[in-house]
Amino acid sequence: MITLHTWTTPNGRKPLILLEELAVPYDIVPVNIGKDEQFRPEFLKLSPNNKIPAILDDEAEGGPLSLFESGAILTYLADKYGRFLAPSGAARWQATQWLHWQIGGLGPMLGQLGFFAKQDDAFALERFVKEADRLLTVLDTQLAGAQYVAGDDYTIADIACYTWIIAAGERLKDTLGDRLDKPDLQRWLALVGARPAVRKGMAWKPRGV
Amino acid sequence: MITLHTWTTPNGRKPLILLEELAVPYDIVPVNIGKDEQFRPEFLKLSPNNKIPAILDDEAEGGPLSLFESGAILTYLADKYGRFLAPSGAARWQATQWLHWQIGGLGPMLGQLGFFAKQDDAFALERFVKEADRLLTVLDTQLAGAQYVAGDDYTIADIACYTWIIAAGERLKDTLGDRLDKPDLQRWLALVGARPAVRKGMAWKPRGV
Ligand SMILES: N[C@@H](CCC(=O)N[C@@H](CS)C(=O)NCC(=O)O)C(=O)O
Ligand SMILES: N[C@@H](CCC(=O)N[C@@H](CS)C(=O)NCC(=O)O)C(=O)O
Repeated sequence: MITLHTWTTPNGRKPLILLEELAVPYDIVPVNIGKDEQFRPEFLKLSPNNKIPAILDDEAEGGPLSLFESGAILTYLADKYGRFLAPSGAARWQATQWLHWQIGGLGPMLGQLGFFAKQDDAFALERFVKEADRLLTVLDTQLAGAQYVAGDDYTIADIACYTWIIAAGERLKDTLGDRLDKPDLQRWLALVGARPAVRKGMAWKPRGV
Repeated sequence: MITLHTWTTPNGRKPLILLEELAVPYDIVPVNIGKDEQFRPEFLKLSPNNKIPAILDDEAEGGPLSLFESGAILTYLADKYGRFLAPSGAARWQATQWLHWQIGGLGPMLGQLGFFAKQDDAFALERFVKEADRLLTVLDTQLAGAQYVAGDDYTIADIACYTWIIAAGERLKDTLGDRLDKPDLQRWLALVGARPAVRKGMAWKPRGV
C-alpha cells in the first residue's frame, strides 16, 4: 500500500490527483506545513528537505521505498502502474521534459511570486511577475499546438502544471491580473479540470481543517 | 548523432559531462546567452522556454527527438546508454528524487541568489542566502551518509548537483562566505571533480570565448 504524506498545496495535490487517476488504494498522512509539521523527525526521515509531498510504498520492488520530490513521485507511480507516462519513445521524453519545466521553472517562480506578493519589495515582485508571465506564455503557446501539455495525451506533466495554475488563479489574481487569461491555457484548464480524479484530488482536505 | 546546444553555465555543463562519461560521439552548438542567442528562432524551435541546454538526437527510437530541460536530457541519455541511472528499483528512484531536488530547489535558488547578489535588495538577498544555506546543509547531510548524492553509485544526480556547487564556489564566494565549507560536501566535490569526464565537461569553452 502507498502512504502519501501531503498537504493542500500545489505540490501536495499532484500525487493525490495521480493516485485518484490510477484508482489504487492509498493512505494519506496530513502534514500541516502551516504548523511546521514538515520539521517533525519522523517526516524528515522520509523527506530530509522538509517539504511535502513524500510517499512510502511498502510493496515496492526490492523492499519498502520512500520518496520525496513531487516530480519523482509522479514518475515512479506512473511507471509502476504503466499509465499517464509512455514507457519509452518521444511521448515519454516530451512528458518528462515538461514535467521538469514545471519542477524547475513554473513551480519555483510562482512560489517566489506568492512570497513576494505579500512583502514590501517592489523590485523583487516585478522580477517574479515578469518571469511568471513569461512562463505562462510559454505554456499557452505550447497548448496552442497541442491538446495537452506534452502532446495528444493527458500525462503527469498536465497534473504537475494544473495544480500550480489553479493555485495562481486562486491566490495571485490581484498580482497577476489578466496574465492568466490566455486562451489555450484556459481551454486546457477546463479540459483537465473536468476529470473526476482531478476534482477529487483538488477537493481533498484533512479532517478538521 | 547527438547535437548539444549549450553554454558554459551550470545547466549547460551537465549534459557535456554526461556525454563525456558515456564516451559517445556528439556535436556542440554554442548558444551564447550573454548575446541573447537563446532567443533565435532556430533555437526556440528546440527550446521554446529560451533556455539552454537542449539536444537533438537524430537517431532516437522512432525518429529525430529534440529535448530541453537538463534533467530530462540527463535522464534520456542515461537511459539510452544504460549508465549512471539504474534501469529500475530503489537506486533509480533515489537518483531521480535527488535530480528533481536539484532541478526544483538547488538550481533555481542558487540562480536567484546569483541574481540578487548583484542587486541592491537586502531583503531578497537575505531570503536566498538563507535558502541556499538550507539546501547546502540538506546536501551535506545526505553526503554524510552516502558516498554519492543518491547512494553508493555515481549517477546523473551527482552531475546535476556538481556543476551548481562549483558555480556557487566560483561566483558566490563573497555572498556565501564559509557556507560552502561543509565537510561531506567538500569530500564529495573532490571525489566527483577528480573524474576525467567531469574535468573535460567543466573545461569546455566555445572557440573565441
Ligand atoms: N520541488 C518540490 C517542492 C516541494 C514544496 O515546495 N513543498 C512545499 C509545499 S507546496 C512545502 O512543503 N513547504 C514547506 C517548507 O518548505 O518548509 C516538489 O516538487 O515536491
Ligand atoms: N530548468 C532548466 C533551467 C535552464 C537554465 O536556467 N538555463 C540558463 C543558463 S544556466 C539559460 O539558458 N538562461 C538564459 C535565459 O533564461 O534567457 C534546466 O535545468 O535546463
